Amino acid sequence: MINVAIIGASGYTGVELARILCNHPQVRLTAATSRQYAGQPLAQVFPNLRQKTALLCENLSIDELCERADFFFTAVPHKTAMDIVPKLLSAGKKVVDLSADFRLRVVAVYEEWYQQHSSPELIPEAVYGLPELYRDKIKTSRLVANPGCYPTSIILGLAPLLRAGIIDPATIIADSKSGTSGAGRAAAVGSLFCEVADGFRPYKVGGAHRHLPEIEQEINVFLSEPVRISFTPHLLPISRGILSTIYARLQPGVQEEEIAQLYETAYAQEPFVRVLPGNSFPATQFVRGSNFCDLGFKIDQRTGRIIVMSAIDNIVKGAAGQAVQNMNLVCGFAETTGLESAPFFP
Amino acid sequence: MINVAIIGASGYTGVELARILCNHPQVRLTAATSRQYAGQPLAQVFPNLRQKTALLCENLSIDELCERADFFFTAVPHKTAMDIVPKLLSAGKKVVDLSADFRLRVVAVYEEWYQQHSSPELIPEAVYGLPELYRDKIKTSRLVANPGCYPTSIILGLAPLLRAGIIDPATIIADSKSGTSGAGRAAAVGSLFCEVADGFRPYKVGGAHRHLPEIEQEINVFLSEPVRISFTPHLLPISRGILSTIYARLQPGVQEEEIAQLYETAYAQEPFVRVLPGNSFPATQFVRGSNFCDLGFKIDQRTGRIIVMSAIDNIVKGAAGQAVQNMNLVCGFAETTGLESAPFFP
Amino acid sequence: MINVAIIGASGYTGVELARILCNHPQVRLTAATSRQYAGQPLAQVFPNLRQKTALLCENLSIDELCERADFFFTAVPHKTAMDIVPKLLSAGKKVVDLSADFRLRVVAVYEEWYQQHSSPELIPEAVYGLPELYRDKIKTSRLVANPGCYPTSIILGLAPLLRAGIIDPATIIADSKSGTSGAGRAAAVGSLFCEVADGFRPYKVGGAHRHLPEIEQEINVFLSEPVRISFTPHLLPISRGILSTIYARLQPGVQEEEIAQLYETAYAQEPFVRVLPGNSFPATQFVRGSNFCDLGFKIDQRTGRIIVMSAIDNIVKGAAGQAVQNMNLVCGFAETTGLESAPFFP
Amino acid sequence: MINVAIIGASGYTGVELARILCNHPQVRLTAATSRQYAGQPLAQVFPNLRQKTALLCENLSIDELCERADFFFTAVPHKTAMDIVPKLLSAGKKVVDLSADFRLRVVAVYEEWYQQHSSPELIPEAVYGLPELYRDKIKTSRLVANPGCYPTSIILGLAPLLRAGIIDPATIIADSKSGTSGAGRAAAVGSLFCEVADGFRPYKVGGAHRHLPEIEQEINVFLSEPVRISFTPHLLPISRGILSTIYARLQPGVQEEEIAQLYETAYAQEPFVRVLPGNSFPATQFVRGSNFCDLGFKIDQRTGRIIVMSAIDNIVKGAAGQAVQNMNLVCGFAETTGLESAPFFP
Repeated sequence: MINVAIIGASGYTGVELARILCNHPQVRLTAATSRQYAGQPLAQVFPNLRQKTALLCENLSIDELCERADFFFTAVPHKTAMDIVPKLLSAGKKVVDLSADFRLRVVAVYEEWYQQHSSPELIPEAVYGLPELYRDKIKTSRLVANPGCYPTSIILGLAPLLRAGIIDPATIIADSKSGTSGAGRAAAVGSLFCEVADGFRPYKVGGAHRHLPEIEQEINVFLSEPVRISFTPHLLPISRGILSTIYARLQPGVQEEEIAQLYETAYAQEPFVRVLPGNSFPATQFVRGSNFCDLGFKIDQRTGRIIVMSAIDNIVKGAAGQAVQNMNLVCGFAETTGLESAPFFP
Repeated sequence: MINVAIIGASGYTGVELARILCNHPQVRLTAATSRQYAGQPLAQVFPNLRQKTALLCENLSIDELCERADFFFTAVPHKTAMDIVPKLLSAGKKVVDLSADFRLRVVAVYEEWYQQHSSPELIPEAVYGLPELYRDKIKTSRLVANPGCYPTSIILGLAPLLRAGIIDPATIIADSKSGTSGAGRAAAVGSLFCEVADGFRPYKVGGAHRHLPEIEQEINVFLSEPVRISFTPHLLPISRGILSTIYARLQPGVQEEEIAQLYETAYAQEPFVRVLPGNSFPATQFVRGSNFCDLGFKIDQRTGRIIVMSAIDNIVKGAAGQAVQNMNLVCGFAETTGLESAPFFP
Repeated sequence: MINVAIIGASGYTGVELARILCNHPQVRLTAATSRQYAGQPLAQVFPNLRQKTALLCENLSIDELCERADFFFTAVPHKTAMDIVPKLLSAGKKVVDLSADFRLRVVAVYEEWYQQHSSPELIPEAVYGLPELYRDKIKTSRLVANPGCYPTSIILGLAPLLRAGIIDPATIIADSKSGTSGAGRAAAVGSLFCEVADGFRPYKVGGAHRHLPEIEQEINVFLSEPVRISFTPHLLPISRGILSTIYARLQPGVQEEEIAQLYETAYAQEPFVRVLPGNSFPATQFVRGSNFCDLGFKIDQRTGRIIVMSAIDNIVKGAAGQAVQNMNLVCGFAETTGLESAPFFP
Repeated sequence: MINVAIIGASGYTGVELARILCNHPQVRLTAATSRQYAGQPLAQVFPNLRQKTALLCENLSIDELCERADFFFTAVPHKTAMDIVPKLLSAGKKVVDLSADFRLRVVAVYEEWYQQHSSPELIPEAVYGLPELYRDKIKTSRLVANPGCYPTSIILGLAPLLRAGIIDPATIIADSKSGTSGAGRAAAVGSLFCEVADGFRPYKVGGAHRHLPEIEQEINVFLSEPVRISFTPHLLPISRGILSTIYARLQPGVQEEEIAQLYETAYAQEPFVRVLPGNSFPATQFVRGSNFCDLGFKIDQRTGRIIVMSAIDNIVKGAAGQAVQNMNLVCGFAETTGLESAPFFP
């Protein structure tokens, strides 16, 4: 049993962390910070948590936080995270950081897409928290950089193909669609119900989304020559879920059984990746509320392309659930602890 | 550990039962029947269940079923249930029936609203499965009649007031709104996405809904003079959730604190009823996916009425979750087993 | 052809006014004010209007506005309206005010529910802009107080019954459900997609909503003894639409045909009220985008109550459409000009 | 003023045709056929049409139909259309056919994707009803094959680029997302509210959708060497709207201004195509209920690809609206007659 704190509990990632952790048998949730809601019960801010936690939202200093907990989830915006994390580590704590601050391994890339990095010395030790690729490193890490939601969906979809060298990586196009919780809980006109409901739209088109360098970083791990890919995010009128439709040119002559075998080999032992049978395609409504990533694929024989489809719940496998999975690995708990619930449908 | 079967697994109540039971630590789900999908894996019919159950949908005889399991959930339409249940009981099995067939204690009332009853002899021993009212009887029952979704929301909202004799029961009006899963999974034009989305409408107005005699039956348990109430169901463009707004004339001079005390007394020990603080009102989005019933109330001093609001997830507390709660009671398990998940929001 | 301006064009009512007016054959839309978006094309703020209007949002003084137009829609918050309207009238302009500032005929009631009134002298001449009740007065008015959305739906539903003295007005309960556009376009957490979607909740319960005095004012016009009613608003996860379910005790012995006749008499000549045939009930999805109010009713013989159901599009008949209908009356245009479009379904 | 009939009025395309035509000033809607609803008022089947049309649904023979009208919309499934259309033409009538039966110019291609064609002799004279490409031919045609919804969105997006020879057509990938009305009004489990809402999924992946040969046919009109493209349809939890995100490799060195000029040249005079300014992207919510096609594009300099985005209302520009536009052309009416309404937002 460990004491755990959520720094930044008032967003959608924060409430989902609290929801998962309040039923986690090896964890005691001992602090939840929020400037905006300081003094209010967390279960008043998020009434779904009534009777599940008596925790108050608090505005705590790092010193106070360090007295409260040994493991931290930093669910704060980038920039804020890189100011907090070094202090937690100095105090001997372990951290899963859900911001972007420690995901990119090259400082210059981070600084090109975000801003100056104030703790570049920590970047080499931060582990990119995708357990399907970095499980062993995560287990011995004290700082896990929890992946972005879009990158999680895209990298899990492509990894078996890249590893096998069976697609032309320069032809990769990821057309991704995300639920609105990905935009966060900030009061913004563009996220209002009436602006989003009954509609659909792309945004940050043409290589403008900050998840792009993260996706490319992980793709290029598999390649001798780095590539650039196309990535287009879209906003879905749903709360939870990401579906990525990924296109790439396939080596001529490859058959579906061969591809199926690659996915099987990669993921048969993975507790949270479900490879669908042939001609079955994933849907966000079948991973909702769960830590699963559902994968399907199809070869388009007419054009020589493969289409890979990947579905996750962006708040779970794309954020809070994967963070808890990482905590389980770091702390030596069974990896699925607290994450066993089946997706709910409908 | 007991062996459990779901008879009628291909509806929304069936899949929700399977979702809950596949994580229930004292239960082994050993059969799921469906004529329509016989031979297919349940997790193919409902892909959310992939990797959670390997069960096939089967078209099994009662004899075959009785070899498979000791506890049964009958999630079949009324009429079908009353043909199956007697055979299960004769074989020494225990049953939670989710149809309407054993909810009404007076056969004539059943026959007025439904059709002829083929097993009237079982009605006296069937227990109405609302644990907050009939917990002790449920514990020793072999046949639990799981309540309807609308009745659950309305009766839990009114019981403390009726018990205290503090409202005029002849003035009760229940204006209820239900998510579309309540209409079931039958292919019907009226339940199509395009007919329901971005819309809202009443149906079975003016005392025409079959849940009405069930609601009145349970209200009249508290009264010396039976009353009739008004009940209007509406269809919400959401999948899960019922919110009932209930009006009644309040005894003059009663204050909010007194009412709060009645609810507190009634429900403080209840694991699945959450009484909200003053001036907080329930919302379906805060009970989604959980077995909670959230209750709030407000006295309208201007008109002398009390307004009680009650929110449940119609598939959970209104169907599958309450059925599992009843199974836990019948089997002597801890009442909350398998039902601990917090509601998910957003 | 008249020149028309919208003061406060950046809200949902403003854009809907612009949408209707840009196709109105007797109107030239000559100004649209917005502080927030001053300098931007209105069609950039609301891209649905591209190619329909070249108007810029501007921050104009009253003097500038008076040079631009002869007829004004004030779609600004209450309080702001009562500061602007007197100046427009002094300049000889005509106004449909969509705020609450001139709806209540008794200043003290306004001041009890809102704040001090700065132009009480205009209240006596303001006409409540419900054409079905006040058509003749509207025609000769220079200041029309456009009704609130909830009041429109409720008053149109009750008027024929109140006029006939056939219900007990003290028993009226209006349970109303509104789409989220009613909350306006302000950036507020409570109106975010993720807070509203897939959910349903009551608000301002127990006689706390500011539309209540407006509803009672118009009900009491029909009565010798004023009554107070119960009114509960709820928030629907749809953009457009209000459905009100209204209950009242009916005089004993009254039959459905008699009621049908009352509605027929009241509304047969009304271009925007559709009385549904027996056992048909309104739905918001069948009035969407139109100026229609659909009405249905049912007598609950078991309880002696009548249930009246009323559906409107809250932005059209509940706001912008009714405002244009009022303008048509004031200006002597055919009443339906610009409002002929059928509701769109699905 | 011409007499017009809708053959197949009970689907979503049928009701939208009726909605548009009942306000069309040069048309008298004189017949609406439906086997299923024969004898019922069309406005009872679709209550949005109450007071807009008194037409009955009828099950009429071709002879009866020919007495009723001079212009026909056939909104029936493919196969049915090719049996009816020849008879209408023989009787001297003009037809816009909304099925797929006359869209493909090569009979063998039709027969590969659909079934045997019973009226191949009519194919050469059928004009593909995309006015932006074939306006002159449409004007003199008696048989217009109204385009599919996906093809409309994709072809309008690509035409200016193909005409200029500025993209590599072999690299075209169209990732399209459609509202659920595209699935029609048939009672099917997959189209139920609870299966679609709060979800998103691809279907007919890998070159399996029947709109593919239609898209390729029109793309190849611009090319000397025919190509095959990738096309993936997805199902959106909205009623109306298609957004296509289209990728292709761009000739090196081309700048955004050059592309903007191509679109400007192609569409500046088009009444229903709106080319958005730079860095603005289309959204389905801004074309809803209108006949507009909104187009935007972005060059991804990092990868050398262009991304074209195209939004239409699938029932309007993707079906009924475009059909009326075609009728206007055939009949010599102003092309925009009956289609002037601005999109409604929200």
